[in-house]
Amino acid sequence: MKYSPINIKNKLSKFDELWSPRVIAEMNDYQFKLAKGEGEFVWHSHDDTDEVFIVIDGTLEIEFRDGKVLLTNGEMFVIPKGVEHKPFAKGLCQVLLVEPQGVTNTGEAGGELTADNDIWV
Amino acid sequence: MKYSPINIKNKLSKFDELWSPRVIAEMNDYQFKLAKGEGEFVWHSHDDTDEVFIVIDGTLEIEFRDGKVLLTNGEMFVIPKGVEHKPFAKGLCQVLLVEPQGVTNTGEAGGELTADNDIWV
Repeated sequence: MKYSPINIKNKLSKFDELWSPRVIAEMNDYQFKLAKGEGEFVWHSHDDTDEVFIVIDGTLEIEFRDGKVLLTNGEMFVIPKGVEHKPFAKGLCQVLLVEPQGVTNTGEAGGELTADNDIWV
Repeated sequence: MKYSPINIKNKLSKFDELWSPRVIAEMNDYQFKLAKGEGEFVWHSHDDTDEVFIVIDGTLEIEFRDGKVLLTNGEMFVIPKGVEHKPFAKGLCQVLLVEPQGVTNTGEAGGELTADNDIWV
């Protein structure tokens, strides 16, 4: 059988849309997704699950109601379930997300930045 | 509240033991673990779960009974549950593993390379 690596930077080169996660792998009922962001995203939460951000390139600020965290290349953070957060990227930021299948990017907030789910790249 | 990034390379600098995964984060009932390997690991499988390898530094070969995959920096692979595999690293390789809590490094095989579980770094 032929086994192929999943190359993260190669996958990132295949789309340009901002705040629109693309699935690159599934593990059990979890998905690994790549996303690009620049500027402000919306305040939102995910009531049923934690969510992992791993920054691949650039800098991502995640604001909480009572603080914030700044992530650069090679840094990760686990957003606890139910905790409101607002991502912000001063320049283009590329991240790897890990979360269960079916999680929507804007969580409980919805709105115009809500992306289609389960798009693979 | 104070929120701190988890810096992957900083965490890797804090241990030297080979084939001995260290937990750096939990998301729901999953764990993110760092591991260092060099040389041959043992044939094993995990009957209840898929397992994700993301190579942070170096090169990792994963042999299967019917093929193999070679992973370098920034590449990932999902080992399907129940599939026998044998990791091999020609030089020092540093990887990020993602799998459920409680998974043992040697899976169903056991043996002298079985590491303690749930050690955080």
